[in-house]
Amino acid sequence: MEYGMYFLEQVTPYEAISRRMEKVLASGRTRFQDYFIFETQAFGKVLVLDKDVQSAERDEYIYHETLVHPAMLSHPAPESVFIVGGGEGATLREVLRHPSVKRAVMCDIDDQLVEMARELLPEWHQGAFDDPRAQVITEDARAWLETHPDTYDVIIVDLNDPIGEDNPARMLFTVEFYELIKRRLNPGGVMAMQAGMILLTHHRVHPVIHRTVREVFRYTRSYRNYIPEFFLNFGFILASDGVDPVAFSEGILETRIRERNLSLRHLTAPFIEAMLVLPKDLQDAIQAEQMVSTDALPMYFTDEGEARQAPYRPE
Amino acid sequence: MEYGMYFLEQVTPYEAISRRMEKVLASGRTRFQDYFIFETQAFGKVLVLDKDVQSAERDEYIYHETLVHPAMLSHPAPESVFIVGGGEGATLREVLRHPSVKRAVMCDIDDQLVEMARELLPEWHQGAFDDPRAQVITEDARAWLETHPDTYDVIIVDLNDPIGEDNPARMLFTVEFYELIKRRLNPGGVMAMQAGMILLTHHRVHPVIHRTVREVFRYTRSYRNYIPEFFLNFGFILASDGVDPVAFSEGILETRIRERNLSLRHLTAPFIEAMLVLPKDLQDAIQAEQMVSTDALPMYFTDEGEARQAPYRPE
Amino acid sequence: MEYGMYFLEQVTPYEAISRRMEKVLASGRTRFQDYFIFETQAFGKVLVLDKDVQSAERDEYIYHETLVHPAMLSHPAPESVFIVGGGEGATLREVLRHPSVKRAVMCDIDDQLVEMARELLPEWHQGAFDDPRAQVITEDARAWLETHPDTYDVIIVDLNDPIGEDNPARMLFTVEFYELIKRRLNPGGVMAMQAGMILLTHHRVHPVIHRTVREVFRYTRSYRNYIPEFFLNFGFILASDGVDPVAFSEGILETRIRERNLSLRHLTAPFIEAMLVLPKDLQDAIQAEQMVSTDALPMYFTDEGEARQAPYRPE
Amino acid sequence: MEYGMYFLEQVTPYEAISRRMEKVLASGRTRFQDYFIFETQAFGKVLVLDKDVQSAERDEYIYHETLVHPAMLSHPAPESVFIVGGGEGATLREVLRHPSVKRAVMCDIDDQLVEMARELLPEWHQGAFDDPRAQVITEDARAWLETHPDTYDVIIVDLNDPIGEDNPARMLFTVEFYELIKRRLNPGGVMAMQAGMILLTHHRVHPVIHRTVREVFRYTRSYRNYIPEFFLNFGFILASDGVDPVAFSEGILETRIRERNLSLRHLTAPFIEAMLVLPKDLQDAIQAEQMVSTDALPMYFTDEGEARQAPYRPE
Repeated sequence: MEYGMYFLEQVTPYEAISRRMEKVLASGRTRFQDYFIFETQAFGKVLVLDKDVQSAERDEYIYHETLVHPAMLSHPAPESVFIVGGGEGATLREVLRHPSVKRAVMCDIDDQLVEMARELLPEWHQGAFDDPRAQVITEDARAWLETHPDTYDVIIVDLNDPIGEDNPARMLFTVEFYELIKRRLNPGGVMAMQAGMILLTHHRVHPVIHRTVREVFRYTRSYRNYIPEFFLNFGFILASDGVDPVAFSEGILETRIRERNLSLRHLTAPFIEAMLVLPKDLQDAIQAEQMVSTDALPMYFTDEGEARQAPYRPE
Repeated sequence: MEYGMYFLEQVTPYEAISRRMEKVLASGRTRFQDYFIFETQAFGKVLVLDKDVQSAERDEYIYHETLVHPAMLSHPAPESVFIVGGGEGATLREVLRHPSVKRAVMCDIDDQLVEMARELLPEWHQGAFDDPRAQVITEDARAWLETHPDTYDVIIVDLNDPIGEDNPARMLFTVEFYELIKRRLNPGGVMAMQAGMILLTHHRVHPVIHRTVREVFRYTRSYRNYIPEFFLNFGFILASDGVDPVAFSEGILETRIRERNLSLRHLTAPFIEAMLVLPKDLQDAIQAEQMVSTDALPMYFTDEGEARQAPYRPE
Repeated sequence: MEYGMYFLEQVTPYEAISRRMEKVLASGRTRFQDYFIFETQAFGKVLVLDKDVQSAERDEYIYHETLVHPAMLSHPAPESVFIVGGGEGATLREVLRHPSVKRAVMCDIDDQLVEMARELLPEWHQGAFDDPRAQVITEDARAWLETHPDTYDVIIVDLNDPIGEDNPARMLFTVEFYELIKRRLNPGGVMAMQAGMILLTHHRVHPVIHRTVREVFRYTRSYRNYIPEFFLNFGFILASDGVDPVAFSEGILETRIRERNLSLRHLTAPFIEAMLVLPKDLQDAIQAEQMVSTDALPMYFTDEGEARQAPYRPE
Repeated sequence: MEYGMYFLEQVTPYEAISRRMEKVLASGRTRFQDYFIFETQAFGKVLVLDKDVQSAERDEYIYHETLVHPAMLSHPAPESVFIVGGGEGATLREVLRHPSVKRAVMCDIDDQLVEMARELLPEWHQGAFDDPRAQVITEDARAWLETHPDTYDVIIVDLNDPIGEDNPARMLFTVEFYELIKRRLNPGGVMAMQAGMILLTHHRVHPVIHRTVREVFRYTRSYRNYIPEFFLNFGFILASDGVDPVAFSEGILETRIRERNLSLRHLTAPFIEAMLVLPKDLQDAIQAEQMVSTDALPMYFTDEGEARQAPYRPE
């Protein structure tokens, strides 16, 4: 490490990553979180929220293609999409690439983050916020879904892992929240979500989420991908009552990619299939998992990676 | 980061990982390299050679299963196996789990490393060095193969990436070396190798290796896996003149795993298939790659990740 | 920072020092504290206790000469000396260099630390533990002084700063403790102590100690020196009812150094005088300080450097 | 170390300091050097040039009082002052506090740095640049002094240590440069300079500078002070042909401070005297030093702290 500016991120309490910052573009605090935006040599612009690297210019396409397209391709012609979180606008951008989409609602609680992204992160949203099909709401997503009975073909949950007992996202990882999502899905609708880092110390994060989602949906399928900007594997989940994502033949995915004219950079139909095949140790961990996160006892993870359940009491 | 002891590893010139060391078990220098062995909370015992984390107690099985079994399962009944490198003995251990193996020769230039591993890393070799089928040679693997005309069913190359112009491993990543390996393979024989980290900055490491191997073998197949102890994806290659690894039906792999009574922790037959499916960006990079590493102009990578070719002149 | 092993020490919550460890000689935990001993390029062997670098082979002479000799030279012929703390034996070593000393009692609560120092830190004690004039006691120094009515010509307090509410050393920085020390001093006796780091964030540490000592002794004189191994200035205090250390002429110090045949490496008579001259900002801070640490409300410092008073309740 | 932004500074090749940056105010590159300005909790605004922390808002007064006032107070009524370097304007500010000053010329080669300081570092210059007595020149100081025959009562050299063979400041630490300065001093004139960090590894920096200055001036007096923002002791030198700074009685300094109405925060007359008293190890090192830096063989220091002499060949 040469002299200069670095961003320190604790991956676990024992391992930390230092990233060289060539230039700090912004740093500050919204009502909800700290944010940092800086330039790096290898990853371009990097966005950090609170303790976690969120996204990097050069490889955000990997995360966002992985989160969005498997769900969108599971549906024959998604017209309406709801996004929980996703403040920087890239999830919205990928959703809007599917020509059948008529309405995409993005709901992120942090209005100041959305405002900042609009101005400072054009590489992420690429104008998506201004697409006439897009609707950006800055409220609590759960409250909004509860009070708005509209239903959707696809709902995408783009949230950080609930690390820390005081993490407000804990109430967005419970059986009751997934039931609400299910009520807001049209018949044949699909939910996709970021479903936790997969790491030795935090090896229960994804299994607990999977186990909880499985309480609610008929089909719950895990997949995983390596996200370079995080130096980590992350789990994702596709869930639906109407359609089983792993039952697709590659041919259907292939055809839909072609028909929708999606020029993907990371995904292919065979690679989507491959992501759905989990290694044995992860399969075993999912099978062995018993914890179900509920509103009464929402789960969280300690910094050390232990899974816990306790009532959520905001300060 | 709390007060205490850390090991600093530079992943790129811009990103570094600090790992908390609970206890330092050994540190020193062999004739060839620095070594460090320490205890960590999350990964157990960790072995570092020179600048790179090499292996960790808790997840070395992922790396070693990934390196060894796809090749061993590609062969109907491998009897003789040669290992280039692999000083800590875990590659040898995995090879010996295949009951058809009658002779496994491991050749690592660093005798002091092998001696230290024998004593301090029992979790890795688990007695493999003392298996009557094992033969441990501490010489330069290329020189040994050149002067010993024995042939093998499987040859496994377990080396670090050639980062740095003065890296002596450079001469073990050339067309001429792969031709030598091919001459030492029995008909139907298979080579497997660790084939480079896959990283934004170092995105050409795997493609250059792939391109070079492809000069020599009829079938050259890349696969990749995430190695938690490295926080990175790594590429691997299967190469053969007699057998195409991706042409297998899952059924054959499944059967061989069962018949050989292999209780694998990370791999399954479908997961081996899935590892062989690459994402589009990596496929494109492999396709676009032109550099072929030769004895006259062996490739190396700069710390910044640039691919270069230049004569190797040991100091 | 090159790849390798480092020790991380937080100087304040905002500034941290990383020291390269060439070799780790020992690490572990006594009943009272973590310890680390390692080799460094610039400072030789380094001893760390809990969060703080304690002493380094190449410059421990600066700290120990600074702590010991001003007090010893203030006394015309010190025969009996008591040391509070000082487990690694170098304070004892410096005390024993004064030929008038007939008895030197060192009392450090941590028997395992003393045992380890005896074996692993010969550069510090240099055999002092085996001097027939030395008596090593491994008990709580305050309890021992309370129950043993022997009196001394010089008492040296060699403790770490009371950082942290749970710091057991807090009860060794109170008016009552200094009164006990005074009762154990012979007429004309002198107390010397390490009296706190002097740092922007922790600028009240030394003033509070000074203010507390001044409650008890007729003459309380601060001096300071830079301790390279800490990268910090530290305060020290000389206190006595019988003798005013700043009233000495240089001539007396000079004469005593010569008569006692002390070959000092860092101190000279004029430099001792100079250390007693404080810069204006520190003088002002001492003058302004109001806090007096008592058994009922012993002071401590937060990690951020704030001075607080609260009852001490060991866990 | 909590998550967040840090500045990494290598103090030696073995020890590094990380400082938490609350906010990055500016970073970039002038034609001569990298610069960074950031907010910290403990030190306020911090200025870094290239690899070295230069100055911090909360304690720059210590460095600048130490550099400027001993020289200014050595002169009965300094009217003209020349400053070599000192781009951020605080040295100039302190000089201008002496009411006898009629002309203060500051010459710093880095015009972009001066421009940036004027705008972003008002806490340093406090308007000094706009004082009618001040003249700011942005040229090479040595070239300017050579071509401008004006003479001064005090010349202050405020430069970084010549670490690195390619360091352009090397030619400002030679006998010939000090001879030039001497020719530009009025009778009774005094030179003051920052004269090198004092550190185990770099223990010859100050002695070599002292030895070189002593070739030129009749009186060469070293003093030292601890600069909190650097976590280091630094050496300073007063040199003159007409006046011996250590021969002053405290009374004279005291009187001049009072007459000039200087409200100093760190210095007092006795403390100035005390700074001139060096510890024995440093005195010995100065006495033993043989190296004299010349234009033909200007000295420099390696990163490891070794003193070397070699011709300076700018790239």
